[in-house]
Amino acid sequence: MTTTRLPSAGFSITIRIGVTADASAIGRLTTCVGEAGAIVTALDVVDSDPTTVLVDLTCDTADANHADHVVKSLTALEGVDVRKVSDRTFLLHLGGKIEVSPKVALRNRDELSRAYTPGVARVCLAIAENPADARRLTIKRNTVAVVTDGSAVLGLGNLGPAASLPVMEGKAALFKRFGGVDAWPVVLDTQDVDEIVSIVRAIAPAYGGINLEDIAAPRCFEIEAKLRDLLDIPVFHDDQHGTAIVVLAALTNALRVVGKRLADVKVVVSGAGAAGTAIMKLLLRQGVGDIIAYDRAGALHRGLTDTNPAWQWLAQNTNKENYSGDLPGAIRGADVFIGVSAPNLLTGDDIAAMAPDSIVFALANPDPEVDPREARKYAAVVATGRSDQPNQINNVLAFPGVFRGMLDAHAEEFTEEMALAAARAIADVVGEDKINPTVIVPSVFDSRVATAVAAAVRAAAQRPAPAPAADPGPADLPEIAASAAAPVAPLAAGN
Amino acid sequence: MTTTRLPSAGFSITIRIGVTADASAIGRLTTCVGEAGAIVTALDVVDSDPTTVLVDLTCDTADANHADHVVKSLTALEGVDVRKVSDRTFLLHLGGKIEVSPKVALRNRDELSRAYTPGVARVCLAIAENPADARRLTIKRNTVAVVTDGSAVLGLGNLGPAASLPVMEGKAALFKRFGGVDAWPVVLDTQDVDEIVSIVRAIAPAYGGINLEDIAAPRCFEIEAKLRDLLDIPVFHDDQHGTAIVVLAALTNALRVVGKRLADVKVVVSGAGAAGTAIMKLLLRQGVGDIIAYDRAGALHRGLTDTNPAWQWLAQNTNKENYSGDLPGAIRGADVFIGVSAPNLLTGDDIAAMAPDSIVFALANPDPEVDPREARKYAAVVATGRSDQPNQINNVLAFPGVFRGMLDAHAEEFTEEMALAAARAIADVVGEDKINPTVIVPSVFDSRVATAVAAAVRAAAQRPAPAPAADPGPADLPEIAASAAAPVAPLAAGN
Repeated sequence: MTTTRLPSAGFSITIRIGVTADASAIGRLTTCVGEAGAIVTALDVVDSDPTTVLVDLTCDTADANHADHVVKSLTALEGVDVRKVSDRTFLLHLGGKIEVSPKVALRNRDELSRAYTPGVARVCLAIAENPADARRLTIKRNTVAVVTDGSAVLGLGNLGPAASLPVMEGKAALFKRFGGVDAWPVVLDTQDVDEIVSIVRAIAPAYGGINLEDIAAPRCFEIEAKLRDLLDIPVFHDDQHGTAIVVLAALTNALRVVGKRLADVKVVVSGAGAAGTAIMKLLLRQGVGDIIAYDRAGALHRGLTDTNPAWQWLAQNTNKENYSGDLPGAIRGADVFIGVSAPNLLTGDDIAAMAPDSIVFALANPDPEVDPREARKYAAVVATGRSDQPNQINNVLAFPGVFRGMLDAHAEEFTEEMALAAARAIADVVGEDKINPTVIVPSVFDSRVATAVAAAVRAAAQRPAPAPAADPGPADLPEIAASAAAPVAPLAAGN
Repeated sequence: MTTTRLPSAGFSITIRIGVTADASAIGRLTTCVGEAGAIVTALDVVDSDPTTVLVDLTCDTADANHADHVVKSLTALEGVDVRKVSDRTFLLHLGGKIEVSPKVALRNRDELSRAYTPGVARVCLAIAENPADARRLTIKRNTVAVVTDGSAVLGLGNLGPAASLPVMEGKAALFKRFGGVDAWPVVLDTQDVDEIVSIVRAIAPAYGGINLEDIAAPRCFEIEAKLRDLLDIPVFHDDQHGTAIVVLAALTNALRVVGKRLADVKVVVSGAGAAGTAIMKLLLRQGVGDIIAYDRAGALHRGLTDTNPAWQWLAQNTNKENYSGDLPGAIRGADVFIGVSAPNLLTGDDIAAMAPDSIVFALANPDPEVDPREARKYAAVVATGRSDQPNQINNVLAFPGVFRGMLDAHAEEFTEEMALAAARAIADVVGEDKINPTVIVPSVFDSRVATAVAAAVRAAAQRPAPAPAADPGPADLPEIAASAAAPVAPLAAGN
């Protein structure tokens, strides 16, 4: 049972076509594309002469095979000459998706003298004297490293550093778009734990936070733990903590929909990797009734031996009844199923056997653990990781605001309190009066989300909100002079 | 003999002053500042009432002591209340000088689907299949790492990574402003050669070039050599090669002014560190008559023992007459003096003893090896590193164009041929008809420089000019489809 993919912008192609210039020519093209199951989104005339027209036809397709089918259908039309097919996703990636821009003007000698030599020398000396000034006088104030070893790129596996770069660039673009955070891709040509730790430690002075990304479990746990010990800036593994925060937010609202309390529910989690482990730890911290964790070893229970430390910990701290049977057996009577594992593990019948008013989060991408259309027949609330289904569990709801808040608070570590506060903030953005089975999380484009998450994280860091990051004009001089001008202390006449 | 510093924008301050509202009040302020030797550049009224005016007075000063003197002079005036003093250089640095900006719009779901999941997955897979595609489909195409260990920051010494960050940010800003290159600061909390090499090797997949910066000699030579062996992208140590290129350009034009040939001249170089060594190697490669190198060990000659490998090499390959005396003795009768060392080593009398039509490049910053006003009494051409003197030798003439050219050529290494071509390009921008003793290099703001250098470097890399880096519109589809669409090869109908 696979979920049929619908045409999407992620598989949009542009086809350059020469066609005879009769009155119905263009109509035949769009009809053909429509009949082939694609969606025409643009039609641009490139050139024409008295007998022919050259057009760029852009359409959304479902995947590469479908795009191939669309092109073949067009090629088969009489009087139609398919010249070239181009992929809009690839076009968009040409030259990369982020750039480094100066925030300071460099139009003339005066501006150069302040931003670079000789003026910059005094700023360097000030930081050498008081290293904490780096948070005010450099990019450290607003900059996060997006670090990967390319070992678990999306759901694609161990592609290595170069092939992971498009994801990390995209992540950096999202960081700026949604959180105003300057993020930079650090894709590492090593998968050795100690080497990764020592590299991140060494590059850390330029950054106010570290976002680990797409690093395979269980290596990711070790890297994160070691870096937390070594660094005085927050270390956040988005695949773990970002996912856990959004899942907790979604579950909070799903439980509101069905009128159950977290302390009373039994949760089954399929997938005890980075995401699953973090989700379970956060649910335990929040006081969940019980959890049964599933992975390749089956149900994690006290009888298991020879597993990694993370699974041993889970076996000890979940599964109150020490269940050791299969997955369908585990979810029988369970209130909540959370899948962060593999496609098509469950059927509608399995979901039907859950407790009344059950909640299903089938987050494997692109194909969920259970077909969401089947699940919706029996469960009260269904969420997936897909953008073409209701209730998309998307990390972009969490990480921009979490880092915005941590940077503004000058936080030295990421804490569970921040995670809980962030989850609560995301859940509360939806609003009691808007919640329903198809709306348990806000839209990723809801601009209130990052602001609310940042405020919650800042409060959890127990620091007051800072002054805005923008360069202040002369009106702000008093505040500046009291701090930035410190290195020229003899100047500080007045107060 | 020290060079008096003049007021400059690098030491600009803004003073908030309350003053009685009589007709001559403002005039008294500006007169006082002028008499104290500073230059008023702006006067803004912040607030006023019937009896007082609050103004922000901005002025250039010479240094921190001078700024202090200016403020004290104002404070001593009757009816004047100095409220606050602020430093414009520090204000400009608040929050850092560069930012990371998305090049792609992320306004709606379609754009998100192409730039991030699910669309990005296909781009990742394409690069995994053909790693060379990273140069087209990621930031690698246009991105350079500015790498330092903070061991030789400007002329300030071993300040460490955090305090070096303002320089590296400034460098990144210059890279974009003058070369359209995206450069990113990599400031490393280690000064171990092998660790630096292994870190740079590991982070290299995201970059199209490595710019080493402010790393102390002789460590910088070893790091550079090892990285060149390991990497398939160019490694360029700006303190060495950037300086050498601009010095050779300036010397080329200086020799045109005095009508001498490089093969005939005797050059004395004071300072055999990173810059001096690279200058000498490039001059030797270009066929200079003779060189005597000076450093803490005195004249580098065959009798020296116990020196580092770089100095031993120089002792073997320069100094034809095996001179071992003092620096003033060495420059007696020499045609060219190049100083990249320390302030005030020579007097006007020393310069007077050089050969007729002598050339003096006194590049120690901020205080040159010889007072340029003294040197100009006896030398035909004088250059310094200072922005307030004619003939400023400034690396910004070289590095943006050099990297622009290397990136566009997909160069895998930086070569001496590129350095020679870049120097020739810089020299030629001035134009035979414009050259004179005070104009041997172009202005750093001359927009022709980077373009000319990039073209010369690209030609030296023996590659044709590439397509522009900007994302092409539909008009460019044919070229794109032939390459970027490769992963969906079945689609490439027609061509």
